[in-house]
Amino acid sequence: MILSKNIIKQLKSLDQKKFRNEKGIFLAEGTKIVCDNIDTMKCEFIIATQNWFDSHQEIPDKIEKCIATIDEIKKISFLKTPQEVLGVFSIPQYNLDNESIKTKLSIVLDTVQDPGNMGTIIRIADWYGIENIICSLESADIFSPKVVQSSMGAVSRVKVHYTNLETFLSDMKGMDIFGTFLEGENIYKKELPQNGLIIMGNEGKGISDKVASYVTEKLFIPNYPQDRLTTESLNVAVATAIICSEFRRGSY
Amino acid sequence: MILSKNIIKQLKSLDQKKFRNEKGIFLAEGTKIVCDNIDTMKCEFIIATQNWFDSHQEIPDKIEKCIATIDEIKKISFLKTPQEVLGVFSIPQYNLDNESIKTKLSIVLDTVQDPGNMGTIIRIADWYGIENIICSLESADIFSPKVVQSSMGAVSRVKVHYTNLETFLSDMKGMDIFGTFLEGENIYKKELPQNGLIIMGNEGKGISDKVASYVTEKLFIPNYPQDRLTTESLNVAVATAIICSEFRRGSY
Repeated sequence: MILSKNIIKQLKSLDQKKFRNEKGIFLAEGTKIVCDNIDTMKCEFIIATQNWFDSHQEIPDKIEKCIATIDEIKKISFLKTPQEVLGVFSIPQYNLDNESIKTKLSIVLDTVQDPGNMGTIIRIADWYGIENIICSLESADIFSPKVVQSSMGAVSRVKVHYTNLETFLSDMKGMDIFGTFLEGENIYKKELPQNGLIIMGNEGKGISDKVASYVTEKLFIPNYPQDRLTTESLNVAVATAIICSEFRRGSY
Repeated sequence: MILSKNIIKQLKSLDQKKFRNEKGIFLAEGTKIVCDNIDTMKCEFIIATQNWFDSHQEIPDKIEKCIATIDEIKKISFLKTPQEVLGVFSIPQYNLDNESIKTKLSIVLDTVQDPGNMGTIIRIADWYGIENIICSLESADIFSPKVVQSSMGAVSRVKVHYTNLETFLSDMKGMDIFGTFLEGENIYKKELPQNGLIIMGNEGKGISDKVASYVTEKLFIPNYPQDRLTTESLNVAVATAIICSEFRRGSY
């Protein structure tokens, strides 16, 4: 395959959700993320330096390869420091299986909008064996270059679904649905199950009133010492990490 | 005070550590961070719109004020969406009191370089009542605009020290010094004290060999389920959050 000006232009357009969805593809950069994705996703083609292909003979023959100079890669890359390899992958289509969700622990994101937070939350889910993340339609798109990079390959292992949260949560009635609120119970004192939904809210606004009405168990991560008058807060990805850690810690 | 071209130029230069240290000042943006800092730091002056000053009558008279238009603020701001207020503060000089450190829980950062991670870690320390962070000299500077903003005001409450870590750790002999390693003990099974040092390593390289030699207690945050073959990892700020949560959870 030859890297034409037209292809470079098309790949550059993949920073926009509109073009990603139109073409059904996204871009991943760097050895770790490209190699993680190859194992689990459909790879359209790989663009890399001759040097990179020489030292990665394990890339299957059936994958289309395009040799490029580092200057050509720089023209496509969204990174400050471009890597020697770029992969173009098909956007996967996952079925949201409500019956299966009911038996597992999952994360629900009510409009998390920062791409860095989104990527970090996918890594946390991956670490703690949470297979599904269900996002409101207004949440950051996981196939934007920033999320793909900050997820460090976890997008290839965690299924992220976008859906109308109210419809989804209506279907989940009867499940334990957790959210953090200032008036919630101390999470450190609470016995937590191995199935349920953990709802995390928007960076500025928290969980919306409509979504909050589905919460059956209100939790709170206490600060230390608890009687301090403070104005501090936790970043949404950090709070997600602490909550997932609490859910899993009893099961080792 | 009048906002001259020269002042705008000088404030713009505060994105560089060299100029911050030369002048001994740093910039904070937005109502929450400026107001948090006013309580605990020396404020040189505040630049804000007339509208902002009108609705913030609580700002003490002794603080020098400069009325500016939003377009003037945009010229100084490091944010994509500039706020109506900017504060210029003196860089605080903290004493590193080794005897006091020995009685407390503190975080040690071995060259954390990403400003976003640094800001997030300061917020975590603030949340969990960790008063001191001791950083290697190569760590990200907490008074860079990106760290100040991502710390959400926590820079005003947590003391961050920069020092030669080997000298510092030599002086801390006899303390429990914790670090995370793949071969470490499951943190969820371990009884953790309320004083000690938690060492966190560089984003790419982890804890350096020299610093690792001072670690007395090796810990590990297990993934779930534990027998999975995965290539995942946790971001350093996320790992810090989980570790701090584990240290504090027993004391509520």
